[in-house]
Amino acid sequence: MLPPSAERLVTELERLPGVGRRTAQRLAFHLLRVPEPEALGLAEALRDVREKVTFCTVCFSLAEGDRCVICQDTRRDLSQICVVETPSDVVPIERTASYRGLYHVLGGALSPIDGVDPEDLHVAELLGRVDNGTAISEVVIATNATTTGEATALYLADALRERAPDVVVTRLASGLPVGSDLEYADEITLGRALRGRQAI
Amino acid sequence: MLPPSAERLVTELERLPGVGRRTAQRLAFHLLRVPEPEALGLAEALRDVREKVTFCTVCFSLAEGDRCVICQDTRRDLSQICVVETPSDVVPIERTASYRGLYHVLGGALSPIDGVDPEDLHVAELLGRVDNGTAISEVVIATNATTTGEATALYLADALRERAPDVVVTRLASGLPVGSDLEYADEITLGRALRGRQAI
Repeated sequence: MLPPSAERLVTELERLPGVGRRTAQRLAFHLLRVPEPEALGLAEALRDVREKVTFCTVCFSLAEGDRCVICQDTRRDLSQICVVETPSDVVPIERTASYRGLYHVLGGALSPIDGVDPEDLHVAELLGRVDNGTAISEVVIATNATTTGEATALYLADALRERAPDVVVTRLASGLPVGSDLEYADEITLGRALRGRQAI
Repeated sequence: MLPPSAERLVTELERLPGVGRRTAQRLAFHLLRVPEPEALGLAEALRDVREKVTFCTVCFSLAEGDRCVICQDTRRDLSQICVVETPSDVVPIERTASYRGLYHVLGGALSPIDGVDPEDLHVAELLGRVDNGTAISEVVIATNATTTGEATALYLADALRERAPDVVVTRLASGLPVGSDLEYADEITLGRALRGRQAI
């Protein structure tokens, strides 16, 4: 019952993650109701981002041009590299304001079952960055706490130790989420929290 | 920490209803990851919809060109008009497949407190459509079950009765939502359901 162009907008919006048909319709009606510059601003931002955004040649995070905002930032701690799976993983880490070093985006996690081997990820480039003689003193492995993320972390720890024995390799702590009840913790998380217990 | 064009996309996405900063970031990363035609397809659909969609000159629903899809559909029942507040209200009614007549979009609801008077809505055009001598036999008032929607329904019922005494004016039934427990119904809804009880 919608005009064809509105139907098409609904279809395009439905492709977004977490957006079903009803939400897509709601968004489409919103975009038809707002002042024209607001709707066209979104269209323009979309075209613009796809035209300009590439990957940083150093860390493979999102960038405009050669280097990403973080690799260009002279106030960052050049002695630390935080290894993440995807460019979007940089966002939550930055939000903590607990890390001031550099990043390295792998482009995924190792998963032999899906045919993802070390050469499919930016592993060689990471090893190149930490080669002895450079400024890197610590690599923080911040892959996901999933099976593939853990496997990737173990693989990288081995590879890094072999390539650069002087570099400290660390992994994000596993344990209880802050604010959570012990009662509701799953036993694997609770086991990790116990093994990783710290003096207070 | 995002490239400027990606930050701008996040800002534009955040303007959408129900989209906070985190969802906007998630959508932006999605739109950066998908094949380029998919992202540009959304941009194009947005430009297109704003260029083409206007209001139907008969019922004020969304249309491309002079008449909306429903007013152009010769299989619709031309003797009924369903009055709704906004173009988006047509969607849920069509979804019921219980109505085959025409629509009339008011463009809002009466609200003296917000300065919305009958002349700010498409009331005169509705009265014109039901003038005696035309084919309309029933007007179904489907404004929202809110204070302003109810006030609008009462106003329209009076105005329609005066202008076209032969036209039957009806209002959507109020009552218990299907599948709901009596225990959780608010007393106003339950009172309405009682007063509107029907023989079975």
